[in-house]
Amino acid sequence: MSARPQTEDGARPARRRLSVDRRREELIAAALELFSRRDAEDVSIDDVAASAGASRALVYHYFGGKQELYVAALRSAADGLQDRLQRQERGGGSLEVARGLSRYFDFVEEHAAGFAALLRGGPGTRTGEIGEIVDGVRQRMFRLVLSEMGIAEPGPVLRTTLRSWIACVETAGLDWLDNRDMKRTDLEGLLMAQMVALLQVAATHDLQVKQLLEASPTGR
Amino acid sequence: MSARPQTEDGARPARRRLSVDRRREELIAAALELFSRRDAEDVSIDDVAASAGASRALVYHYFGGKQELYVAALRSAADGLQDRLQRQERGGGSLEVARGLSRYFDFVEEHAAGFAALLRGGPGTRTGEIGEIVDGVRQRMFRLVLSEMGIAEPGPVLRTTLRSWIACVETAGLDWLDNRDMKRTDLEGLLMAQMVALLQVAATHDLQVKQLLEASPTGR
Repeated sequence: MSARPQTEDGARPARRRLSVDRRREELIAAALELFSRRDAEDVSIDDVAASAGASRALVYHYFGGKQELYVAALRSAADGLQDRLQRQERGGGSLEVARGLSRYFDFVEEHAAGFAALLRGGPGTRTGEIGEIVDGVRQRMFRLVLSEMGIAEPGPVLRTTLRSWIACVETAGLDWLDNRDMKRTDLEGLLMAQMVALLQVAATHDLQVKQLLEASPTGR
Repeated sequence: MSARPQTEDGARPARRRLSVDRRREELIAAALELFSRRDAEDVSIDDVAASAGASRALVYHYFGGKQELYVAALRSAADGLQDRLQRQERGGGSLEVARGLSRYFDFVEEHAAGFAALLRGGPGTRTGEIGEIVDGVRQRMFRLVLSEMGIAEPGPVLRTTLRSWIACVETAGLDWLDNRDMKRTDLEGLLMAQMVALLQVAATHDLQVKQLLEASPTGR
């Protein structure tokens, strides 16, 4: 997402030859890159245009303004992440959750800019449009884990536990991008072990979780 | 913080009699209350002025603009929380962490508006001023737990684990304000048990944590 698309013949990008969709994606990629490195308020439409080799007027033409561009960029990052999680949401227990986590970190690694921009938020309110985008990704993770556990309606303890674990994953992802002092596979292993441990804690506080773990002593 | 101060004689608030500090606090309290219930972009200076029984000009006089008022309101909420955590940062093991957690939830409960506004963020960028405020509270929690563990420099596994646990606490706090379907003491107990469990997981991945827990088999 950070690499700008080349024209078909690999030559110096010819603006007019780019299709509408491709030009839009190019602007979004440039915006995500900039928004993740700087405070969103310090990124101007001119910066995005310059970075994408486009005119200021073109950015306004596609997005209307900075707030709209910002929301579009974060939505694009979130869609990419949700696509990955959706692609494998089809039963198989904790192994599937581990695969989901691995896809999540594929995304963190390949689209560091988008991931950081998404979770660090920006000028849109978190309770508004940006909040909805972030919540959409969280809901997808939440449902993925629940469906692997064969549960439709979690009680308060399980709901809080799973939301907490998802927060662990997000926090660990941001920390890893900042520090990169753990191997990614080690971090994924740590997070899976955290999920199992948090579910075991939940089982000591809640009958629903206890029965669930007893029915699947291996944690499925 | 949500209750507006009365004048000394308990009569209908007389604007001119309020001291500068008190008037400022009153405006901040009104702002926090509004920002936590609505998207910040849907809260106007006029709304804040009306809610505080002040003039629009006075709000501009004290804060300069909505962004400044917003940042001041969140900083006030964060200062209140940090004060509580600081007041008891003086050694005593997991009991002290449990007390810190209880003070944290005192704050969550008494200043629901400020807590939600702080963590749900708003028009300030999370990487900018608001981000610094939120990070300040997190750093305080982080140091509190580290100091209770007698550790100055955490390795990557312990750092990630404690940051993840703090994210669990924040997530559980927001979830609890939304749902209120667990007793607060039960939730605090769940979070303390989560911390112990996460440290035990960390011990299986990291020598520093393993030695720490072996030296204090009760988890201190």
